[in-house]
Amino acid sequence: MKQIDGSVTAVPGIKASGVQAGIKIKDKKEVALIVAEKPVAAAGVFTINRAKAAPIYVCQEHLKDGIAQAIVANSGNANACTGEGGMVDAYNMAKITADELGIDEKLVLVASTGVIGKRLPMDKIEAAIKLAAKSLSSDGGHDAALAIMTTDLAPKEIAVEIEVASSPFGKGGQGEFPVKIGGVAKGSGMIRPHLATMLAFLTTDVNIAPELLQTALRDAVDKSFNMMTVDGDMSTNDTVLILATGMAGNPKITAKNSAYHQFCAGLDYVTLELAKMIAKDGEGATKLIKVVVKGAKNFEDAEKAARAVAESNLVKTAIFGMDANWGRIVCALGYSGAEFELSDVDVWMNDLQLVKAGVDAGFSEERAKEIFKLDELSIILDLHAGDAEATIWTCDFSCDYVKINAAYRT
Amino acid sequence: MKQIDGSVTAVPGIKASGVQAGIKIKDKKEVALIVAEKPVAAAGVFTINRAKAAPIYVCQEHLKDGIAQAIVANSGNANACTGEGGMVDAYNMAKITADELGIDEKLVLVASTGVIGKRLPMDKIEAAIKLAAKSLSSDGGHDAALAIMTTDLAPKEIAVEIEVASSPFGKGGQGEFPVKIGGVAKGSGMIRPHLATMLAFLTTDVNIAPELLQTALRDAVDKSFNMMTVDGDMSTNDTVLILATGMAGNPKITAKNSAYHQFCAGLDYVTLELAKMIAKDGEGATKLIKVVVKGAKNFEDAEKAARAVAESNLVKTAIFGMDANWGRIVCALGYSGAEFELSDVDVWMNDLQLVKAGVDAGFSEERAKEIFKLDELSIILDLHAGDAEATIWTCDFSCDYVKINAAYRT
Repeated sequence: MKQIDGSVTAVPGIKASGVQAGIKIKDKKEVALIVAEKPVAAAGVFTINRAKAAPIYVCQEHLKDGIAQAIVANSGNANACTGEGGMVDAYNMAKITADELGIDEKLVLVASTGVIGKRLPMDKIEAAIKLAAKSLSSDGGHDAALAIMTTDLAPKEIAVEIEVASSPFGKGGQGEFPVKIGGVAKGSGMIRPHLATMLAFLTTDVNIAPELLQTALRDAVDKSFNMMTVDGDMSTNDTVLILATGMAGNPKITAKNSAYHQFCAGLDYVTLELAKMIAKDGEGATKLIKVVVKGAKNFEDAEKAARAVAESNLVKTAIFGMDANWGRIVCALGYSGAEFELSDVDVWMNDLQLVKAGVDAGFSEERAKEIFKLDELSIILDLHAGDAEATIWTCDFSCDYVKINAAYRT
Repeated sequence: MKQIDGSVTAVPGIKASGVQAGIKIKDKKEVALIVAEKPVAAAGVFTINRAKAAPIYVCQEHLKDGIAQAIVANSGNANACTGEGGMVDAYNMAKITADELGIDEKLVLVASTGVIGKRLPMDKIEAAIKLAAKSLSSDGGHDAALAIMTTDLAPKEIAVEIEVASSPFGKGGQGEFPVKIGGVAKGSGMIRPHLATMLAFLTTDVNIAPELLQTALRDAVDKSFNMMTVDGDMSTNDTVLILATGMAGNPKITAKNSAYHQFCAGLDYVTLELAKMIAKDGEGATKLIKVVVKGAKNFEDAEKAARAVAESNLVKTAIFGMDANWGRIVCALGYSGAEFELSDVDVWMNDLQLVKAGVDAGFSEERAKEIFKLDELSIILDLHAGDAEATIWTCDFSCDYVKINAAYRT
């Protein structure tokens, strides 16, 4: 696997664009369009929030047959909690896009992110979609990444090239096919397990059956976006979509063979990298934090413990304050629900042991200060209660988080 | 029931004190002592955090017979995650106190709050306990309230006088007995359901069997401290203790009769008022927020929904920013796990309806701004899915929360 330049348009047969729309922020691109040359295999994973935004229902409806051709998305307005009118608007976004592209509206997937509870300015959306359709290009992925940003500080883009085998026996069968996977994402606030106001749009030229594409995407999301948390809020709009053009020319993947697992490895890499970009760019964040819980009785315990530490405001403000306040880490572990004996617990920050057998390890505060200067750090807990392990990605919690969110709507 | 001056020492037969100890903050009282004239009925409720602090174990041991005479507490150091040495220190706090008072050490309950993971400076603690024993007075409740504060901005104290009947038939039986209930508490950070780094010490002169005192306290805590949340973190040290001297002279309460329920009503009032004081003085808080969920299918759903809204950083930063961003409220409801149909949901802020049948009610932003000027406000959600209701108390989330917690240990 190698990382290559670009994002969704690094994949042959995909065009994209991102254009201004005047929805919320002047001079910012707010409508993105990603289009395949023809109807292709498609899959999606969505928020489990009970207050789902209108576009989620449209995607679920249009993905029933596992085939799609275009993704249209806007930032600045989430089209959530907008009632029947919002549903009409979301279907209209699909219809306007389909009319511009000359395709069936059932081939269009829709996503929105931004303020909840306000109707979309459909006149502006319509004008922007028309402009986006005219602006489609084979290097438009970056514009699409810009157009879906809200409070993100940086666009999130990645592309890789992998090889998938043509035979079920892997390398050396009847040759290998280079396959590309590209993605753009947005995150920032309302980020937590089971998705967040995060959108991620992925493209690939692998040739795969829609039902296996759905399985591969579901598994990749569980290992990446669902293992990341910024602020513990789960949004109404979270959406991950993938279009697979099949243009790589590999024999169609219709079973969980070598080619399937090779593709999954690439997809896992792309989704995890995008998830880390989202965590690192969490609202107000100054650091990317990897929380690893080892030695848990089972995976559920490991995940609960890692999540409790990663979601603790007190742990995250301490790290923002460059304070190796391990008591808050052990405290979060304590209420996580995971089984452990306090006297067995070890805690490290990178290679510096903070806690040994449940008590202060007598670490160097100087060394801790050095670690806090890094952009990324790891908190590692070993419960010595079993063999299971889980990793959650998060960020620290700064004053700017509060400032950003106290002023978001007004 | 009427509110009276004072706190724990408003109850006859109780003396208290609070003295400086030099543990963490210069010129601040850091050791509190509350003592009854003789061994009395006592009860306690403690954190369910798996990483319990040493003094919790001492209290649980010493409360086995439901009898105690003294409570000794320190701020500045939590004596949590301190291993076997910390257990020795906690038992020593009881022993030093017992020796000074000339009583059995099993009659002494111990509590600590402050930094986790550092051993207590036992020389300073010993000197302070000796001073506290010499300083005991029948109006020392206020000093005790001051001594248990950490990042609290104000001491939390209350006392009430109620009447309990001597007969099981209530008023008009064989007379009524005036009974006093007093309390002090500390809160501020790590405040959430199932207790927090909160301590509350209560006294009463009611005559009651220890097992009923324990039941009354457990029920009161569930309706007050466990219905309050500041930051979603549950601490290692949470402790609520009560001493009941029996000096009111009422026939001993040994069953759930009228007198028991009259006493419970008073205890519920005292604990709820203390809980509200803690929420209002949450770290960095500018407002007390009451989240009420009505029309839920059952109490569990009502509580889950109220808790999700009350613990959402995004809801709380919006209120800090005086932004009636109801989308975040509905979003938190959506991921709470409570059953509802979005198109049934109504949301109010005080008497201003924000959401009607799941969509924007078209409210006056001017009127919202006026409500945000108040020190206390209510968020009311009606799910129209049943008859159950729950209330959670919380506060808003300001930049100062982050500042306080980024700098707490160092």
